[in-house]
Amino acid sequence: MRWALMIEYDGGPFVGWQRQATGLSVQLVLETAAAKLARGAPVRTVVAGRTDAGVHAEAQVAQLDLPVDIAADRLREALNFHMKPHPVAVLRAAPAPADWNARFSATGRAYRYRLLNRRARPALLAGRVWHVPQPLDAAAMQAAAGSLLGRHDFSSFRAAACQASGPVRTLDRLDVVRTGDLIDVVAEARSFLHHQVRNMVGTLKLVGEGSWPVARVAVALAACDRAAAGPTAPPEGLALTGVRYPTDPFNLEQSL
Amino acid sequence: MRWALMIEYDGGPFVGWQRQATGLSVQLVLETAAAKLARGAPVRTVVAGRTDAGVHAEAQVAQLDLPVDIAADRLREALNFHMKPHPVAVLRAAPAPADWNARFSATGRAYRYRLLNRRARPALLAGRVWHVPQPLDAAAMQAAAGSLLGRHDFSSFRAAACQASGPVRTLDRLDVVRTGDLIDVVAEARSFLHHQVRNMVGTLKLVGEGSWPVARVAVALAACDRAAAGPTAPPEGLALTGVRYPTDPFNLEQSL
Repeated sequence: MRWALMIEYDGGPFVGWQRQATGLSVQLVLETAAAKLARGAPVRTVVAGRTDAGVHAEAQVAQLDLPVDIAADRLREALNFHMKPHPVAVLRAAPAPADWNARFSATGRAYRYRLLNRRARPALLAGRVWHVPQPLDAAAMQAAAGSLLGRHDFSSFRAAACQASGPVRTLDRLDVVRTGDLIDVVAEARSFLHHQVRNMVGTLKLVGEGSWPVARVAVALAACDRAAAGPTAPPEGLALTGVRYPTDPFNLEQSL
Repeated sequence: MRWALMIEYDGGPFVGWQRQATGLSVQLVLETAAAKLARGAPVRTVVAGRTDAGVHAEAQVAQLDLPVDIAADRLREALNFHMKPHPVAVLRAAPAPADWNARFSATGRAYRYRLLNRRARPALLAGRVWHVPQPLDAAAMQAAAGSLLGRHDFSSFRAAACQASGPVRTLDRLDVVRTGDLIDVVAEARSFLHHQVRNMVGTLKLVGEGSWPVARVAVALAACDRAAAGPTAPPEGLALTGVRYPTDPFNLEQSL
């Protein structure tokens, strides 16, 4: 039986979503919990967005194949019980069709990158924001973000380790919104290249602080060269906030 | 020279604002940092709201008397430097008149109590919310909150250890606002009794879960008896969000 899971996690203590020999991953925590429900049989998960070390998720979506019969509420409660005390929580669980795939059926991913733009370091938001003490011009960042919208070769914003088959992506949304000391960069696309959001944010930050003119971001994009764009923003400001599918796999009445 | 400081802190690792023999307090962290600027002379602070262990502050206000000449920006930066790595940050520092008192000049305090109302335990908001897994009726809680507004004897919501001279307070605002899985209870008054907000929230939660009818909150208030009201909500959901003075001691241009 195939399940769709909506998952929240604090990326801080993990090496990222994916299993790695170097440390604890969210995938390992989830699959270890699921194996207890599968009478010890190994359990495989597939995820919509393979987040890096330190990156958070508010609504990650994973698929889970379980060889046992169980109710959706029981599954969610049991997984949450077995994942204690790790900061990972299954928010929703819903049965999914056998041909549904958490990764390949997804038609949209949304991320939010949060900057704390004030002199004082974060006390309450430590580990959840990129602290930038110098004043940032959010309007200039928004203007520069506009030049990244649409279908482009995003090689300038692509990590060397990126495993995607090509560098072309269509960026549907890149908004820069200031609320007091916080600046949120909201990004939406069908899919992203590895480090694409963090590389775009690291570049927009150069515009915000005045190191780059707005127009240089379009030049960096056109160069199709990673060296032409800005540095990678740190992981802790990034959160996967949602995944879209042609049909929502979750019943909203299961939301509580 | 007297200073007004606006301070943010994560209450989790502290025994509360006030110095105590039992552990680390925010006051001790701040006064230890300030003493380094005062060439070792002891430094005294007074605070607007003496938060309990585990209670957070987004905009606490403290006064600090320093026997040295220093610029406001330098003071803020130096205090933040010396308070590392504790989760306490001075957001603003402004010179204050000698007759200004952070506690006695304050004419309003605002608190927010946040509940996470969903089955799954918090991953991203652990330590920042009261996790209530059973469904709460926020509209019923709001209706009951209305009966607490205004000037009353709040003995039913007053901690036994409360050091205030009397139990009468005027509650100016008590709003219950649901946003998705979050329920915020926003409380404003000139001042509060010890545990008053947490005792009101613990009582409203009984209404929200259906254990109490809305009307019973007015009965509990009228009883002027702590035993008539509900239990004390846990500290981690509470944050001091602001302090009001007849004249704002902070210049907004110093905000960044």
